[in-house]
Amino acid sequence: MGTQQKRIVIALGGNALGNSLSEQMTAVKTTAKAIADLIEEGHQVVIVHGNGPQVGTINNAMTEYAQAQPGRQTTPLSVCVAMSQAYIGYDLQNAMREEFLNRGMKPRNTSTMITQIVVEQNDEAFADPSKPIGQFMSMEEALKEAGERGWTVKEDAGRGYRRVVASPKPREIVEINAIRAMVDDGNLVICCGGGGIPVVREGNHLAGAQAVIDKDFAAALLAEQLGADMLIILTAVEKVAVNFGKPDQRWLDHMSIAEAETYCSEGQFAPGSMLPKVQAGMQFAASGRDRVAMITLLEKAREAVRGKTGTIITQA
Amino acid sequence: MGTQQKRIVIALGGNALGNSLSEQMTAVKTTAKAIADLIEEGHQVVIVHGNGPQVGTINNAMTEYAQAQPGRQTTPLSVCVAMSQAYIGYDLQNAMREEFLNRGMKPRNTSTMITQIVVEQNDEAFADPSKPIGQFMSMEEALKEAGERGWTVKEDAGRGYRRVVASPKPREIVEINAIRAMVDDGNLVICCGGGGIPVVREGNHLAGAQAVIDKDFAAALLAEQLGADMLIILTAVEKVAVNFGKPDQRWLDHMSIAEAETYCSEGQFAPGSMLPKVQAGMQFAASGRDRVAMITLLEKAREAVRGKTGTIITQA
Repeated sequence: MGTQQKRIVIALGGNALGNSLSEQMTAVKTTAKAIADLIEEGHQVVIVHGNGPQVGTINNAMTEYAQAQPGRQTTPLSVCVAMSQAYIGYDLQNAMREEFLNRGMKPRNTSTMITQIVVEQNDEAFADPSKPIGQFMSMEEALKEAGERGWTVKEDAGRGYRRVVASPKPREIVEINAIRAMVDDGNLVICCGGGGIPVVREGNHLAGAQAVIDKDFAAALLAEQLGADMLIILTAVEKVAVNFGKPDQRWLDHMSIAEAETYCSEGQFAPGSMLPKVQAGMQFAASGRDRVAMITLLEKAREAVRGKTGTIITQA
Repeated sequence: MGTQQKRIVIALGGNALGNSLSEQMTAVKTTAKAIADLIEEGHQVVIVHGNGPQVGTINNAMTEYAQAQPGRQTTPLSVCVAMSQAYIGYDLQNAMREEFLNRGMKPRNTSTMITQIVVEQNDEAFADPSKPIGQFMSMEEALKEAGERGWTVKEDAGRGYRRVVASPKPREIVEINAIRAMVDDGNLVICCGGGGIPVVREGNHLAGAQAVIDKDFAAALLAEQLGADMLIILTAVEKVAVNFGKPDQRWLDHMSIAEAETYCSEGQFAPGSMLPKVQAGMQFAASGRDRVAMITLLEKAREAVRGKTGTIITQA
């Protein structure tokens, strides 16, 4: 890869946002610096973010408040996803503006756009909830919540137990035309937050779904539809590894789709953690010969775009 | 007024949104019809909405959830306003899309844009909270909440007691350039929701303020800055009256700014109710000779734009 200007969709994970509002306000400052670095190099960036801890907090707060008031309707998970888009987007757009001013850069118009994404009513994910949201719990707390609230709970990558909800595949970004117009016009857009508000088609109506879409798959779909050159999926490691934690562990600079498929079928990547990131990257790479998916650390994003680190996935 | 196409900023009040999520989902359908009527006549519409009941609910839910968990930070009112923009905007953009499809109209790209609005740190409103938010309470409930939570509570236009918060004047719409680009491009934009997220300048930083900006003043500022032809403030009456409820009550078709000033100084309009609507209308009318502010019912908006009902305010 050279240094030419690219259209980049960047998917921010938990590390870029923190687990609470105070962590978020600190984390977005670092995130804003990493994104401003890319923009300063001339790239055009579109921001997608996750919402696991945030949508869990919002959903818990709204549910407990409704339960304490007879006759008050529970706020559906889809509405909580919408609220998380503003909860996070506000902080991000605020931090981006400040970072531009601190650097003496011409401030880009930074906007959070509330985004709905269509999922299929018969997506098999509805029968097998797998997406962790909310806080980590001990096994005892998890079993208690499962009993009292009817939650599905699962152990999450050795870090404790969490509630899991259905995570259907994103099929169509409802607001894609407005997003494209904004991006084409040179604005910095934050959209598809938390994977987008999940909705299912009911004739002309879009009904909210009890689900949280994986933000990496949403970002891959967005990158495809915006004709992006690159999808960057930020995570807690600088590169993807095979034989992770074993004596023959190996960090990867590059995977073709065929190689990635082999690694996936060998079970090299943890479900709910690295696996969906690699799969989302494969999906984007498959959509065009020159399209590059990259998995790396937030702090390494600029170096990675320069070709110096990170793991990239390309068609061949 | 003729039938030429106009750029219209429309400010939706409580009646257009309802007091709970289920009321909201019904109310936005009627609202979407009224707005689609205007668009079908060729007008370009920009939507601003209030958030009194919604931001109260969100703030209560987030506060109670935080109080129940040691160490959890309370969600500032500014973040709750952001969340209310998505809570309402999602429903509105969803309803607009459906209404366009039901009518066989080419669906406009409808987007909710999260908007920050700068207020002044020394705005006298911070010393005199006046904006009602949340649910109505009895006097007993209101006194209890005031004692337990430190709320300021006030009697609201004969309908019961409500919590009141500071309502400083909007000074600058942070995302105005992005909003203008979207509107100029022919998109249907929902922005400045709940009066905008109130922020104060601290150098390059914008800090969230404990306040809720009046949505009619925010809409007036937006209409001015977008060069709108018309500002429509929707409320619970078809026209503004003087000597309201008295034998000599008189419905007004038109007020010049001078006439409106006289009525205001006579105390004709209830503070926190009709008064800020008339003042917001006066502000917009004062900004240009051809600019028309209108106060009417949601259901009468189309007729009013045709010049058949409503109260208009113009410079002379």
